[in-house]
Amino acid sequence: MSSTEKEQMYDLLKKLFPICRSITGEGVRETLKIIKEYIPIKIHEVPSGKKVFDWTVPKEWNIKDAYVKDDKGNKIIDFKENNLHVVGYSTPIDKKIDLSELEKHLHSLPEQPDAIPYVTSYYKERWGFCIQHSKREKLKKGKYHVFIDSELKDGSLSYGEIIIPGKSEKEIFLSANICHPSLANNELSGPVVATFLTKWIQSKPRKYTYRIVFIPETIGSITYLSKNLNLMKKNVIAGFNITCIGDDRLYSYLPSKKGDTLSDRAALNVLNFKHPGFMKYSYLDRGSDERQYNSPGVDLPVTSIMRSKYGEYPEYHTSLDNLDFVSPEGLYGGYDILKECINLIENNSKYKIKCLCEPQLGKRGLYPTLSTKSSGKQVRDMMNFIAYADGTRDLIEISDTINVPVWELYEIIEKLKKVDLLD
Amino acid sequence: MSSTEKEQMYDLLKKLFPICRSITGEGVRETLKIIKEYIPIKIHEVPSGKKVFDWTVPKEWNIKDAYVKDDKGNKIIDFKENNLHVVGYSTPIDKKIDLSELEKHLHSLPEQPDAIPYVTSYYKERWGFCIQHSKREKLKKGKYHVFIDSELKDGSLSYGEIIIPGKSEKEIFLSANICHPSLANNELSGPVVATFLTKWIQSKPRKYTYRIVFIPETIGSITYLSKNLNLMKKNVIAGFNITCIGDDRLYSYLPSKKGDTLSDRAALNVLNFKHPGFMKYSYLDRGSDERQYNSPGVDLPVTSIMRSKYGEYPEYHTSLDNLDFVSPEGLYGGYDILKECINLIENNSKYKIKCLCEPQLGKRGLYPTLSTKSSGKQVRDMMNFIAYADGTRDLIEISDTINVPVWELYEIIEKLKKVDLLD
Amino acid sequence: MSSTEKEQMYDLLKKLFPICRSITGEGVRETLKIIKEYIPIKIHEVPSGKKVFDWTVPKEWNIKDAYVKDDKGNKIIDFKENNLHVVGYSTPIDKKIDLSELEKHLHSLPEQPDAIPYVTSYYKERWGFCIQHSKREKLKKGKYHVFIDSELKDGSLSYGEIIIPGKSEKEIFLSANICHPSLANNELSGPVVATFLTKWIQSKPRKYTYRIVFIPETIGSITYLSKNLNLMKKNVIAGFNITCIGDDRLYSYLPSKKGDTLSDRAALNVLNFKHPGFMKYSYLDRGSDERQYNSPGVDLPVTSIMRSKYGEYPEYHTSLDNLDFVSPEGLYGGYDILKECINLIENNSKYKIKCLCEPQLGKRGLYPTLSTKSSGKQVRDMMNFIAYADGTRDLIEISDTINVPVWELYEIIEKLKKVDLLD
Repeated sequence: MSSTEKEQMYDLLKKLFPICRSITGEGVRETLKIIKEYIPIKIHEVPSGKKVFDWTVPKEWNIKDAYVKDDKGNKIIDFKENNLHVVGYSTPIDKKIDLSELEKHLHSLPEQPDAIPYVTSYYKERWGFCIQHSKREKLKKGKYHVFIDSELKDGSLSYGEIIIPGKSEKEIFLSANICHPSLANNELSGPVVATFLTKWIQSKPRKYTYRIVFIPETIGSITYLSKNLNLMKKNVIAGFNITCIGDDRLYSYLPSKKGDTLSDRAALNVLNFKHPGFMKYSYLDRGSDERQYNSPGVDLPVTSIMRSKYGEYPEYHTSLDNLDFVSPEGLYGGYDILKECINLIENNSKYKIKCLCEPQLGKRGLYPTLSTKSSGKQVRDMMNFIAYADGTRDLIEISDTINVPVWELYEIIEKLKKVDLLD
Repeated sequence: MSSTEKEQMYDLLKKLFPICRSITGEGVRETLKIIKEYIPIKIHEVPSGKKVFDWTVPKEWNIKDAYVKDDKGNKIIDFKENNLHVVGYSTPIDKKIDLSELEKHLHSLPEQPDAIPYVTSYYKERWGFCIQHSKREKLKKGKYHVFIDSELKDGSLSYGEIIIPGKSEKEIFLSANICHPSLANNELSGPVVATFLTKWIQSKPRKYTYRIVFIPETIGSITYLSKNLNLMKKNVIAGFNITCIGDDRLYSYLPSKKGDTLSDRAALNVLNFKHPGFMKYSYLDRGSDERQYNSPGVDLPVTSIMRSKYGEYPEYHTSLDNLDFVSPEGLYGGYDILKECINLIENNSKYKIKCLCEPQLGKRGLYPTLSTKSSGKQVRDMMNFIAYADGTRDLIEISDTINVPVWELYEIIEKLKKVDLLD
Repeated sequence: MSSTEKEQMYDLLKKLFPICRSITGEGVRETLKIIKEYIPIKIHEVPSGKKVFDWTVPKEWNIKDAYVKDDKGNKIIDFKENNLHVVGYSTPIDKKIDLSELEKHLHSLPEQPDAIPYVTSYYKERWGFCIQHSKREKLKKGKYHVFIDSELKDGSLSYGEIIIPGKSEKEIFLSANICHPSLANNELSGPVVATFLTKWIQSKPRKYTYRIVFIPETIGSITYLSKNLNLMKKNVIAGFNITCIGDDRLYSYLPSKKGDTLSDRAALNVLNFKHPGFMKYSYLDRGSDERQYNSPGVDLPVTSIMRSKYGEYPEYHTSLDNLDFVSPEGLYGGYDILKECINLIENNSKYKIKCLCEPQLGKRGLYPTLSTKSSGKQVRDMMNFIAYADGTRDLIEISDTINVPVWELYEIIEKLKKVDLLD
């Protein structure tokens, strides 16, 4: 089952990888349509020019083809080979120019000569190509034909949304980006894991309502907040921005601005037990949509659990962040942590033992009948849970205090409820 | 005087050592009767079958004799030699059995081959013998005569109690156990030190009322709480569970569940100055009656100051925890720390200096008249006490902050009161 | 300009150095008169015998000459060579005595044989001389003529004060001592730096009112508080005791008693960025007038920023604390830190960004238009300021949190105000 899930996640990622996404346009729509084959998201369109807080929804960008040909007609850069070759939101061009002129529009990474960098220019109109530095260094003087068949026009910004109602109107919020072209860890791992989390959340009735969105970064989250902020401020009790969650290197955590919200407490508890060597970043290291969710006046309790964090691995924002950089196991590891966090938030309550003093567990078959030098340790976890189940501490605090993973406490809680010792 | 106290304590411990105590029965009564020769405790009896919170007072257990004889009639295990040889609460038996059958009822410690382990079975009826592992290994095949002349019958649970009224109805609570057979540090040191603390408390009028109990562990504290909880919750401001307080190895501290009660603050302050190398345990390491006193809904501020803590020394719960393991000095060290804690709680107040700015100590003969390079340090402690005597900090906080033991501050307070500078 | 200030400060110190100051008398008046040539202080006189809290203003002490002559008439100790030679507040004497009698009135430092110690006896009448230990050891048996032409009489205690009104009646309080004779770091550096701070404060309109005093230590601050306490308790929001601020060794910080006042927060913030290796003392290490300002019931938020702290450098309270021990650069370093602290307190507010979500800095020319792998870091400081500018955190907290010096934030604040993003 979970092996199947791993592979299904990786398959979805492979399917989405070749599409040329940006913050608007057909690539985003195609991506949302494929996700809709897995979960019933609703696709929203917000028109270009719409004011969203301090921003304006930009023109829609689409691209059909792009290349640079040398004077012999050889395509030395070809968008169809890799969509990172074109600067995102490039304006159209069809012109023969000198190498010196071309150079002004080229982007490459001298320190990573075989990687194509990922570059965008959403809010200033320009055109450009991204190229391996090793290739760039071999370009000879002469004429080049630069061709970009793109279009910048009034259109709309697209995003996907699904609301899964629970018993409570209080919400857990999940957000993933669908605006990067062929980049695997940052960011296709995000919508892929979010899609499978959605399937899992839908698989049984839940205590909380779930709000899950698939949006372009920054302008998407700002647009979404401008439409939903009041309701979200009222209802969202925890949230996770899901990005960079598909590689095999390590686990990372980036706190909310407040740092001690329910999301933070759940994330730290689960990571501490599952992956105690995880990397703990500061809110100062933020860089994705948690910037908007935690901004002054918005102040939603949104944190990030990641594998290798954006900006912190060499492959980041280059063509090396590809299908080899992520793996079924990598994706599943991230998915698993987020499932445990959601499980924990669903189960988190203030438990209270029903009797005064320690209960007599022996008469209920929960305690050894023979007291020897070591027998006291055998039921230690249960006794520790009971000692702190005083109605003032929630499950996270008890687990942190007695140093027992919550998944082991779920069993203890079941046993104690069964013998009517717990509310 | 204190040398006499040391020896008197050790003498009492020696007197109580041979008695076969359990959680009920004649051994407990005999123990309480001897303690009553020192201090006027009242002895209470609670009948078997009485419901106490989640528990029931068990049948009373008494034992006259027990042994195992080999087929030649040699006593190879003899209760009269050491009362640890019989599993506590063993049912009567008188039967000849094979070695293979006997083995099922034997308890020994392979890693401590010369020690008799201490084993009980209070809440399930069974019988058994405890034996040195070295002896057990030499048992030969054949018939054995097992004989236990014990009785399990409706009777009562016995405990001792003394209330020493003070000026205030607010109480300091002391609790010691009297349910272990011939075991010295855990636990006869407890009732012995508690007895001498009681004598000392009685020796002069006190600010607080003292509630001191001598009870069997667990069922005794639960029984006592079931009768006195409301009053204790109203009045008890500090409490100490007194156990494992008679050996010479180290000092230990186990906090209350809350960790910052008056008992904790006093214990930490005194131990920090008297025995800075003391061992600090967590509430998760608890194991004696502080479990009941700190349980949810009971929540009394009870902490433990010990020498070598139960479960943490190899001799624990074996015949090696004997009269050699404890000493007059060991007992006196524990007694002394508890006296200082009680002294501190009796003297703890929020002091307030009477004048604004620093007082002129010089005109009162409390300050050197010549100001030289070093004279400032000589009255530093007094000046520091004054600096923090602002009516918001109690003595413990001032002592902790200025790093001066409270017993040195008592003198300073006397001096300042004498010159009318302190309220 | 600042080079001029350095030299001007050192020149003022040199001018004040030879004067024989004490807690009262003509030396203090002469000192205040020279300071008055720089800044318009008002000079107050409080008569001897006046009760000030627990103290009484002492008699006024003046001295014209003093020496010890050997039997050949050679001056072996001469007050006119160094005013430290006479114990402060010495009573007059004119007498021939034996060496053995003279020895009872001599003070020297065996471990610093070439230094003259600084000794006073304000509150008990006595006379004495201070001498280099090396010289003392060479004194031969015989008669000595001891001569002190001093006078202890009813007079007054003098102090200087200047109030510089600001927009708010809330006050920043600065205090410096003017009671030590020829001692440079402790303490002439104090009134010198305070004088130049006053000039700088006067140089432009200020938000806060400034109360600056030049007073004798202890009796001066007590006297001043006895006259001004109610107003100061109402208005003073921050204060600095300015002493030991002229040498080149290190920077030091001594907290207020509370430890987290506005003065403490400003001092720690500025020192952390300017001189991260600064020495952090405890309030237990106090020794100057912060003792009075922080005393119970007074409780003003007064802290100290120093260079080498009193009592912590070998030259302290000896003739080695002279014009060579301080320097123009040393004085300027201390002056500069205090200016930055005052700047910070003047600018400290709770800022609030005007829009929801991150503002679009790009359209205002504050953000790079091309998003590349590294461009995110370039405007990081501004984005971090915005992230925390939520109206609940003051500038100090934001600076501490995002680890950016306040002087860099002043620029950012200006930019954001210019584009109307900040209140």
